[in-house]
Amino acid sequence: MAEDRIRVGIVGATGYTGCELLRLLLRHPRVAVVEITSRSEAGRPVGALFPHCRAPELIFSAPDEARLAVCDVVFFATPNGTAMTMVPALLEAGVRIVDLSADFRLHDARLWEQWYGMPHACPELLAEAVYGLPEVNRRLLSNARLVANPGCYPTAVQLGFLPLLEAGVVDPASLIADAKSGVSGAGRKADLALSFCELDGSFKAYHAAGHRHLPEIRQGLARIGGTAVGLTFVPHLLPMVRGLHATLYATLREPGVDLQGLFEDRFRAEPFVTVLPPGAHPETRHVKGVNHCHLAVCRPQDGDRVVVLAAIDNLVKGAAGQAVQNMNIMLGLDETLALEDVAVLP
Amino acid sequence: MAEDRIRVGIVGATGYTGCELLRLLLRHPRVAVVEITSRSEAGRPVGALFPHCRAPELIFSAPDEARLAVCDVVFFATPNGTAMTMVPALLEAGVRIVDLSADFRLHDARLWEQWYGMPHACPELLAEAVYGLPEVNRRLLSNARLVANPGCYPTAVQLGFLPLLEAGVVDPASLIADAKSGVSGAGRKADLALSFCELDGSFKAYHAAGHRHLPEIRQGLARIGGTAVGLTFVPHLLPMVRGLHATLYATLREPGVDLQGLFEDRFRAEPFVTVLPPGAHPETRHVKGVNHCHLAVCRPQDGDRVVVLAAIDNLVKGAAGQAVQNMNIMLGLDETLALEDVAVLP
Amino acid sequence: MAEDRIRVGIVGATGYTGCELLRLLLRHPRVAVVEITSRSEAGRPVGALFPHCRAPELIFSAPDEARLAVCDVVFFATPNGTAMTMVPALLEAGVRIVDLSADFRLHDARLWEQWYGMPHACPELLAEAVYGLPEVNRRLLSNARLVANPGCYPTAVQLGFLPLLEAGVVDPASLIADAKSGVSGAGRKADLALSFCELDGSFKAYHAAGHRHLPEIRQGLARIGGTAVGLTFVPHLLPMVRGLHATLYATLREPGVDLQGLFEDRFRAEPFVTVLPPGAHPETRHVKGVNHCHLAVCRPQDGDRVVVLAAIDNLVKGAAGQAVQNMNIMLGLDETLALEDVAVLP
Amino acid sequence: MAEDRIRVGIVGATGYTGCELLRLLLRHPRVAVVEITSRSEAGRPVGALFPHCRAPELIFSAPDEARLAVCDVVFFATPNGTAMTMVPALLEAGVRIVDLSADFRLHDARLWEQWYGMPHACPELLAEAVYGLPEVNRRLLSNARLVANPGCYPTAVQLGFLPLLEAGVVDPASLIADAKSGVSGAGRKADLALSFCELDGSFKAYHAAGHRHLPEIRQGLARIGGTAVGLTFVPHLLPMVRGLHATLYATLREPGVDLQGLFEDRFRAEPFVTVLPPGAHPETRHVKGVNHCHLAVCRPQDGDRVVVLAAIDNLVKGAAGQAVQNMNIMLGLDETLALEDVAVLP
Repeated sequence: MAEDRIRVGIVGATGYTGCELLRLLLRHPRVAVVEITSRSEAGRPVGALFPHCRAPELIFSAPDEARLAVCDVVFFATPNGTAMTMVPALLEAGVRIVDLSADFRLHDARLWEQWYGMPHACPELLAEAVYGLPEVNRRLLSNARLVANPGCYPTAVQLGFLPLLEAGVVDPASLIADAKSGVSGAGRKADLALSFCELDGSFKAYHAAGHRHLPEIRQGLARIGGTAVGLTFVPHLLPMVRGLHATLYATLREPGVDLQGLFEDRFRAEPFVTVLPPGAHPETRHVKGVNHCHLAVCRPQDGDRVVVLAAIDNLVKGAAGQAVQNMNIMLGLDETLALEDVAVLP
Repeated sequence: MAEDRIRVGIVGATGYTGCELLRLLLRHPRVAVVEITSRSEAGRPVGALFPHCRAPELIFSAPDEARLAVCDVVFFATPNGTAMTMVPALLEAGVRIVDLSADFRLHDARLWEQWYGMPHACPELLAEAVYGLPEVNRRLLSNARLVANPGCYPTAVQLGFLPLLEAGVVDPASLIADAKSGVSGAGRKADLALSFCELDGSFKAYHAAGHRHLPEIRQGLARIGGTAVGLTFVPHLLPMVRGLHATLYATLREPGVDLQGLFEDRFRAEPFVTVLPPGAHPETRHVKGVNHCHLAVCRPQDGDRVVVLAAIDNLVKGAAGQAVQNMNIMLGLDETLALEDVAVLP
Repeated sequence: MAEDRIRVGIVGATGYTGCELLRLLLRHPRVAVVEITSRSEAGRPVGALFPHCRAPELIFSAPDEARLAVCDVVFFATPNGTAMTMVPALLEAGVRIVDLSADFRLHDARLWEQWYGMPHACPELLAEAVYGLPEVNRRLLSNARLVANPGCYPTAVQLGFLPLLEAGVVDPASLIADAKSGVSGAGRKADLALSFCELDGSFKAYHAAGHRHLPEIRQGLARIGGTAVGLTFVPHLLPMVRGLHATLYATLREPGVDLQGLFEDRFRAEPFVTVLPPGAHPETRHVKGVNHCHLAVCRPQDGDRVVVLAAIDNLVKGAAGQAVQNMNIMLGLDETLALEDVAVLP
Repeated sequence: MAEDRIRVGIVGATGYTGCELLRLLLRHPRVAVVEITSRSEAGRPVGALFPHCRAPELIFSAPDEARLAVCDVVFFATPNGTAMTMVPALLEAGVRIVDLSADFRLHDARLWEQWYGMPHACPELLAEAVYGLPEVNRRLLSNARLVANPGCYPTAVQLGFLPLLEAGVVDPASLIADAKSGVSGAGRKADLALSFCELDGSFKAYHAAGHRHLPEIRQGLARIGGTAVGLTFVPHLLPMVRGLHATLYATLREPGVDLQGLFEDRFRAEPFVTVLPPGAHPETRHVKGVNHCHLAVCRPQDGDRVVVLAAIDNLVKGAAGQAVQNMNIMLGLDETLALEDVAVLP
């Protein structure tokens, strides 16, 4: 392992997000994964839990701040409420952080505590944390010490509304996001509600009355559009493992606008956002395992409503891939390093 | 087979809808299936094509008006454009018709021809055809000679918006229907786009710019609400066989209305519509194989938008089950005959 | 509810097998479900747990011998080790028992204790218990007080080998059963290994070195053939909910035997076993939700090896359906009552 | 594109195998894909058919020998019967060939014609063609002009029986291969039998009386063991896209042999075969998208029968990945180039 490799740690690597981080980072040409923690699996080789993962030298260790402090970058793939207890000391030690949990995503500590049901351990860091949506915050990310990696729903919904709100062509009070996610978004755990027989061949909405990603999306859209938004957000669970699709609706203020051109111009320089040709429909399989977002936009029956279709892989552009993209930006590396795979299709 | 059984014919019984009709009608205590046609399979025992179907005496015959004329009721489970060529002669012969195709669903022949791309063979019958949504048209159905059985999307979307539009509590220009269907809705055919490897584990919208069920839904909602509606309808394809879920959005005119009570009152007497308790989310598996519609209604964050969740089995309440329900009503039978199964779960 | 209905109780009705029993028994024309127990859900309406189950009057109660003693028949759909603690008192009270767990399946208490890892609570009843495979034990079942309902794998494997062993045309030391089951066979529980993301789109063998159904199958085959058998049994887990397929191999002693005729003759009178025509392959979807077993037999390349293909629904012919069939036989009812559904296909 | 890149052509790139070749070869550091043909899609950008494939410069061309003749290596991912008509001229032109179809897999032209139902166009090349199973033929492959890439079933079955037959520890007349494949093994085509609704949630055997891969497996096993084998081979179709699992049975001649050691020794140096620890069961998800074969071996109940479990991805180690591995060997490159991915899990 070359001396000049970036030393990376992953905290909480037994979940699907941590496992995905591992897949991407093991093949990153500039990274060495030096620390990988799991309280429950400490001492066990990674290969015993993940036989597909060809890294015989990696062994889970119990999370330990001193060991993590030798890392250049630490990723948190932990349940909400864990990162905020360890991040202050690590920042102090000069480690840079990408947190994939929700701990640093909201700027308002009160709002966070209301949705996440616990006191925040370090509200003073909320202002410093950079929200890791590169298509919006690339410049801020390049200097960040602490990145709050967006949730999967927020990534797809914000990317889809982005050109419309920036250009001011829709009524910001009219937004609806009907979003559908694969089951892996719910994490890796023993839960009857996530069992095969309860989900296969069926479909449902959940948390229709209010999902934790709602305030995050609202905050992001408000910043993008420069004004508060009225948003209805209904998440659904798809009988499939990976993939997230958001169908977005808004009322046009200027029906004559060239929507296709607006989207293509906005994302032309973005390495991980593709605007499909008119009439196309994104399919989640086309982004399975990769860091891309596929978008399409249309105006049904030439009416005053715009429909945006957005597809991502919830574990990649919606989690681990975007985290690596953020790390690449933070460290001044080529933004696409380790993220150039082709989707495994079919 | 008892003398007094109702003689029934099924035209086009090799598709999924025809096969489902057969499943229900074979166990109907008052019905004898006497004719079952298929141009491509004529002469073949039904059991050779459908080994699960225990009706050794049934043999596919070529569709023939003289043979069908002995039936009391004929169901058409044919592609669009077939029923309209045979229905006039059968009506003449005193046969009553339930057409599961789209041929008689729109009252405006011109609109029909525009969406279905062919001239209509008997536009003079469009005014007589009764739209077979029992929750709206039960009284008309009891005397009908010709029933236009609703499409799967239209069934779920109309049932969901019904109480809101009847009560006038939402802005009829504000309607959005984000609908998701299992693959069986696309029929039984050799088509690369419907193959397992193209669909499994993936999700997409389709016909976002305009689907054939749109004018049917608009016509139905306008009649229900007594005024034209503004509706955006986006269908999606789920990686599962059966089940259809519609997520409906509308802007409330009277935010104070008791939505739960409104829905419960409207459907209390309906044998096949269940309003779930507050906070519940319908799951398509709970109506798999049965003629029920599960509904839930909520007002997220107590705002001015109402969300309705509707789940049906696209092949039952969305097709064959509703057709049998319509036949029961037409013939003055108990409306629930042959429709009292419990869903096969898991 | 008519006076003369058979009073039935279900112990352990929150699992998939209990839920399936409920589906079948609720529509049984001669049965009244009067008691349905669950320790964890006592006091809760059945409809709250199973919204698809239209039985508003049913409420889970804690299992109680006095209440169960009023039943004519009690079904146990409990984990192994529960029925044996309650059955003696219920038999004493004159209740007849169908046990869907493994408690009474083996005649040798020592063997049972070895495979199930606990002492048997009433080994004295093992000799009386009738093994509930109607195709073998119909006459014994008609007088039984206590029926040990077969496991899902044992049902398919025994039915497939039955004609070969009875006729003595294969070497009993040469048997191989390569069996594949849907996930519902593992029960309804919170278990990471059964979660959607761990199973969807993947396939594996499990317990290749020895599965608990092995001694049960061996015992049954030995009785059928009148001699001990040499059997290798490897179970596998299919990424689907329902359905079990066994592929059986044996070495022919008499290669000239008419295998197709042998199978057709043996099962001609059986209401729930269908021998498919030569060249056909059973598909689990054709028996989904129904009590049938589909069989096919062939001799590849006219060699000395016979291959039998057997398909059942693990929850119906492999569990709850067979239990109802056994009850029908025990009570002298028409064996097919409540078991005449057509599979829901697709 | 560097001058020294190996120029590669893919004939028949619109199928799943061709698409998979493209995925692997586009990221091969020493390869330039210069020609990609499809008769039906000629002139169309690859990205229009495969939106996930980020190669904007690639355009399908009609297959043309002159254009293909500039390639260093040409892969055939065509239906059986196509490669044999084009290979002689290309070999003449100095092109090296990896044929993923069955055209050159059997050494006996008569046997080939019997199973594939057509005359062979160049039987004189059958003797020269090297069977591309690197674990058996690595040395021959390094000099090959023409490689016959093995079928998916033959790859898994041969790798699993390999140590047993080489060591002579099993009776070669006693072999049984019960194999299960994902649907992608059947190719990309419009076929009712491959449609989602006909396959999802169901399982069946097919071609139990004789599958085309049987003579290929027999030929390979005979060469490995130095003697003819008696093999029963039954393929099955899994309701999933990718993955192939073979469960292999044989009678031990020497029950005392250390099977685990035998397997570990045989494959220790193999980069793409992993022998799992005792008691483990290979899962197809652990090799999804990668070129690995996972194997486990056991002797149930310490009897005289050995069971081998083998899992591969049918499109990678069972097709395109093995083809790239063969090309790497033919050209003297590092055998693992472009094949070092980690499986996408979950």
